[in-house]
Amino acid sequence: MQKIKVGVLGATGSVGQRFVQLLAGHPWFECTALAASARSAGRPYREACNWFLSAGMPDRAANMVVQPIEPGLDCQLVFSALPAEVAQSVEEDFAAAGYGVLTNTKSHRYDSDVPLVTAEVNPDHLAMIPFQQGQRGWDRGFIVANSNCVAMPLAMTLAPLQRAFGIKALIVQTMQALSGAGYHGVPSLAALDNVIPFIKGEEEKIGPETKKMLGSFSDGKFDDANFKLSAHCNRVAALDGHMETVSVSFEAPSISPEAVLEAWHSWGPLPQKLNLPSAPKCPLVIRPEPNRPQTRLDRDNGNGMAVTIGRLRPCEVLDFKYVHLSHNTIRGAAGASILNAELMLAQGMLDQFR
Amino acid sequence: MQKIKVGVLGATGSVGQRFVQLLAGHPWFECTALAASARSAGRPYREACNWFLSAGMPDRAANMVVQPIEPGLDCQLVFSALPAEVAQSVEEDFAAAGYGVLTNTKSHRYDSDVPLVTAEVNPDHLAMIPFQQGQRGWDRGFIVANSNCVAMPLAMTLAPLQRAFGIKALIVQTMQALSGAGYHGVPSLAALDNVIPFIKGEEEKIGPETKKMLGSFSDGKFDDANFKLSAHCNRVAALDGHMETVSVSFEAPSISPEAVLEAWHSWGPLPQKLNLPSAPKCPLVIRPEPNRPQTRLDRDNGNGMAVTIGRLRPCEVLDFKYVHLSHNTIRGAAGASILNAELMLAQGMLDQFR
Amino acid sequence: MQKIKVGVLGATGSVGQRFVQLLAGHPWFECTALAASARSAGRPYREACNWFLSAGMPDRAANMVVQPIEPGLDCQLVFSALPAEVAQSVEEDFAAAGYGVLTNTKSHRYDSDVPLVTAEVNPDHLAMIPFQQGQRGWDRGFIVANSNCVAMPLAMTLAPLQRAFGIKALIVQTMQALSGAGYHGVPSLAALDNVIPFIKGEEEKIGPETKKMLGSFSDGKFDDANFKLSAHCNRVAALDGHMETVSVSFEAPSISPEAVLEAWHSWGPLPQKLNLPSAPKCPLVIRPEPNRPQTRLDRDNGNGMAVTIGRLRPCEVLDFKYVHLSHNTIRGAAGASILNAELMLAQGMLDQFR
Amino acid sequence: MQKIKVGVLGATGSVGQRFVQLLAGHPWFECTALAASARSAGRPYREACNWFLSAGMPDRAANMVVQPIEPGLDCQLVFSALPAEVAQSVEEDFAAAGYGVLTNTKSHRYDSDVPLVTAEVNPDHLAMIPFQQGQRGWDRGFIVANSNCVAMPLAMTLAPLQRAFGIKALIVQTMQALSGAGYHGVPSLAALDNVIPFIKGEEEKIGPETKKMLGSFSDGKFDDANFKLSAHCNRVAALDGHMETVSVSFEAPSISPEAVLEAWHSWGPLPQKLNLPSAPKCPLVIRPEPNRPQTRLDRDNGNGMAVTIGRLRPCEVLDFKYVHLSHNTIRGAAGASILNAELMLAQGMLDQFR
Repeated sequence: MQKIKVGVLGATGSVGQRFVQLLAGHPWFECTALAASARSAGRPYREACNWFLSAGMPDRAANMVVQPIEPGLDCQLVFSALPAEVAQSVEEDFAAAGYGVLTNTKSHRYDSDVPLVTAEVNPDHLAMIPFQQGQRGWDRGFIVANSNCVAMPLAMTLAPLQRAFGIKALIVQTMQALSGAGYHGVPSLAALDNVIPFIKGEEEKIGPETKKMLGSFSDGKFDDANFKLSAHCNRVAALDGHMETVSVSFEAPSISPEAVLEAWHSWGPLPQKLNLPSAPKCPLVIRPEPNRPQTRLDRDNGNGMAVTIGRLRPCEVLDFKYVHLSHNTIRGAAGASILNAELMLAQGMLDQFR
Repeated sequence: MQKIKVGVLGATGSVGQRFVQLLAGHPWFECTALAASARSAGRPYREACNWFLSAGMPDRAANMVVQPIEPGLDCQLVFSALPAEVAQSVEEDFAAAGYGVLTNTKSHRYDSDVPLVTAEVNPDHLAMIPFQQGQRGWDRGFIVANSNCVAMPLAMTLAPLQRAFGIKALIVQTMQALSGAGYHGVPSLAALDNVIPFIKGEEEKIGPETKKMLGSFSDGKFDDANFKLSAHCNRVAALDGHMETVSVSFEAPSISPEAVLEAWHSWGPLPQKLNLPSAPKCPLVIRPEPNRPQTRLDRDNGNGMAVTIGRLRPCEVLDFKYVHLSHNTIRGAAGASILNAELMLAQGMLDQFR
Repeated sequence: MQKIKVGVLGATGSVGQRFVQLLAGHPWFECTALAASARSAGRPYREACNWFLSAGMPDRAANMVVQPIEPGLDCQLVFSALPAEVAQSVEEDFAAAGYGVLTNTKSHRYDSDVPLVTAEVNPDHLAMIPFQQGQRGWDRGFIVANSNCVAMPLAMTLAPLQRAFGIKALIVQTMQALSGAGYHGVPSLAALDNVIPFIKGEEEKIGPETKKMLGSFSDGKFDDANFKLSAHCNRVAALDGHMETVSVSFEAPSISPEAVLEAWHSWGPLPQKLNLPSAPKCPLVIRPEPNRPQTRLDRDNGNGMAVTIGRLRPCEVLDFKYVHLSHNTIRGAAGASILNAELMLAQGMLDQFR
Repeated sequence: MQKIKVGVLGATGSVGQRFVQLLAGHPWFECTALAASARSAGRPYREACNWFLSAGMPDRAANMVVQPIEPGLDCQLVFSALPAEVAQSVEEDFAAAGYGVLTNTKSHRYDSDVPLVTAEVNPDHLAMIPFQQGQRGWDRGFIVANSNCVAMPLAMTLAPLQRAFGIKALIVQTMQALSGAGYHGVPSLAALDNVIPFIKGEEEKIGPETKKMLGSFSDGKFDDANFKLSAHCNRVAALDGHMETVSVSFEAPSISPEAVLEAWHSWGPLPQKLNLPSAPKCPLVIRPEPNRPQTRLDRDNGNGMAVTIGRLRPCEVLDFKYVHLSHNTIRGAAGASILNAELMLAQGMLDQFR
């Protein structure tokens, strides 16, 4: 099978680097274009990019010349890790020019014709694409978004519970890693020996995105899930990995802890059934120890694509409480976007690019 | 006025060192006895104690000889920072021998005749002491406890709200500092680049202690407050300072944010009225900025005795949410205990020791 | 005695904040002007400045309006914490306009007529000022520099040894705190779980500055000390406090460790004799324990103005090795600059401003 | 080829866990025995071991039952990560009982008949084994040691220079990771926002071990290299990876930086020639950037087995200075030990076990 050519928009940033890393040696995709801002364009990636992932820069990417962020890239799909303010129009330009766009930015997440997809949670939302193309007059281009790095793993732990019991309300509190803010996001003097109980614009995203992903799709229309969600977002001194503590109540009465565990254990999402290359065998890893998950020990589970759950117990105010952890730039960003592309390819939704 | 002689039980540990630090130069108390385990007893404090506070060891304490933990110390009051398993009987021995015992340990917090006091929250609970002495046959000795370092600042931010609106339910999530676990509590390999969403025995304490402090006292009997409380406790990589995010609902309907702020601002607790030496002028510091409090920047407010509140906003599930921060070994432990002693002295409750 | 009015140039940065903090309540100086870049000028300091020191912003400074960095400030002395590229001409403008300039920047450190002074080490270098004024045609203005935050404590530990034994050669290796790079200097992703063995432009400063300070002054001319110095500079994950390990050889043969300790202990520099407000009682604190100094435990010795020495022992290659620690933004910057001003005032060198 | 059975002594500790990790899936060795102290013996490894490496515990090891540390283990070789005080006699017992012992502990490093081997540096020292066996009356058992985690990478960067130019003297200063002290070695309160310029017993090891490895072997006798070495050892807040800054002088005069680089680049040690499974392709990775190596970015080079060098430049006191970094529990401990075993097997020195 010939590989599909893909590009990365915003290739030098925190999430951009993860895309480059995860695409190196990918069995289905070949990274043939790296694009970044004018400051970087025209220079070899090895020079343009201040690589800060602990595994080194892939050789092949290192030698590629960074290109400007505009259609004309030699590829069929682009993964977007652009800043939101840039992304809005640029991503539409790419889609209009016939590229498939898989975006991490919030730019189009709330558009009524853009699917916001976590491959395990709402693969059916991809059926919006033909409607989107029709409405926007795009022939083969499209935009598929993935969600915020907090909402995505949250949706994954909620999805089986919602199906089984119905979600009524939840309060989620996060302890988020520094990499989520980008390389220059949090100065070290603000990170060491500190907690910052605020992340600009973050709490506002969690509710709408989680409800859109856990909502339904039919007749070219999304119908958001109907529960109450309150978020407290905090920045802590971890490099990678977002920890979330959750208190949740169900529509169904008298649910036992065993039933909750069973709902999680028996979850068999589509990416795992299709055996997609980036799909973790076990999307939800449930640890029985009282002191797990831990950020450093569990963020790489399933190559950074699994969500690790622990400490399920009754909540004195809502029904249950638990904690989960996931890798924010893999599961919560680049990896999720690539998994969406794999899911589309496996379902024949990228045949226009062959 | 002659100073009252006080001793510290468990003087070499994390909280013990804070006691020694805060008692140095105290206007009303003079630290005349330091007691610690057999390993330390008989050695000068400077050698017995691995001092790790950033301000150096007080000179006078440095030269004192550490004594065994048993009655016979040359003092009238003892502040106890003993491990819980040791504290239970030892503290009773001291009280029986005529010492006033102010304890940080959980050993007697739940006893039906031991007041669990945060000086600003429930000073009236000290009226239990004569009942306690009568019941236990102690003539002038007594045991007064202060609460867990999470419950205490929580009770302080809740007290004015409870009075004004009644508390119905709350969910609190903590990001607690390493010093709370003691010097050897958390290995550095478990702290760096990590979050541990579990602190042994901690969540179980928050509810009962908060409800006892916010409960009432009459006729020699405590009546716990009657609301629902759920706690998620986490350990993060900060040296000192516990951050807590709170979602709370009230008995009274339709409370405005302005009313909540007004309840906090107008709070005028007894220790401040009495102008006690350790009472912070402003027990609740309310910061208007979206990104405050922060652990490193706000833990020393009011010499470590103030609780700093921020980010009051509506909660989508309960009524309001906010965040507060306090210094866990000062406000949450040693400082609170000393403040209790000051409150007793100012109210004539220590006259038996003059 | 009426206080002398002083201003701070670059008042919003890392060192600028320390100036503001240390000048609050100063017995001899009154801070009447805060100046910063165009972005900040015209706004109240409380808004213009992202204050990140753990003790809060001084009330009085908070309400001052930040002014542009140009002569016309209502003060007689200015303390400069400007970026080097800005400082060069601005500082000369201020001196020409009749201000006394005490600068932390490297801009004029190597000028042949600018004294580079550590008050304890080379107070006699201040006698250059009349020559400087004559040469530059300044009537009462002047520029006095203090050194880099590594060279200054190094010069302090070397000064007594140089006098007693003569320095032949030394190798110094540093482990420097994050605050030395300014608030935005080191991203958290570069600081946590990392060491960066490079600080741009730093190693080049250590030799020339240390030799100038340990050199002599006569007849309007500085004569640098004549020893070999090699520096390895590293950034580590500490907030404040530079640790330096030193291997040194002497001109004099067969020096005993006792003689070295005696040289340090018997050092009695001028600021201490004059009992200057910012002079630490003990400028060199010598700790006997094998595991001291430590950054967090010792940086605040002498209110951040002392240098703490430890681990003196023979060196297998040079003669001796030891380690010292000092607070980089107090002893190594703002505090040292203020101490220089105090020294000048105490010696009548600021009488033109009365 | 049938795999050789190997065991790990001290399997639950910091270095023991690395052995277990690196031996999982090893092409030549099969880990069939895990031994640890009485507290752990008899329990499954998954329960006995508080695994703290970020990749999870290997499944097969997880299910093995931990055995007591005494001969009788079902294997031919043992890798020892025992505490030094235990290792001394136990390792001799194992060798006497016919096991090949490859040890990380300092117990036998200085014995006149025990080779202290870094596979790339002094593979010829293994020829001591028959002498050792003869002297001690062991038929097929033996003891081969590897060095301290600081001395090993140091010997690697020095070996090509010694051969080319002769080493005259060197001063090495280290910034060592927390994992070197073991899981409970450094409390978090001693690690965060701190540097500890002291590691008990460490500086004393560097000279003797480096000189033994860089010395010669002939006629059953080791002859240590004859240069002067001075070490400053420091603990910093990094999880894994020891950074070392080196100033060195050569016997040969007037060496150019190009010659030094050439000596490193042209180094072709035996493990690489033999293509041993754990030998990094490039044992010395030389980075041209001014700000490399960095601990977090470079410690995993060559799967943690390479030493990364940077910043070669003239030294004002000795001849040159540079910095190098290596992974302390892989290159500096478990990985080096396994590489020694591979080297022996490839040279037929383990044929007695087939």
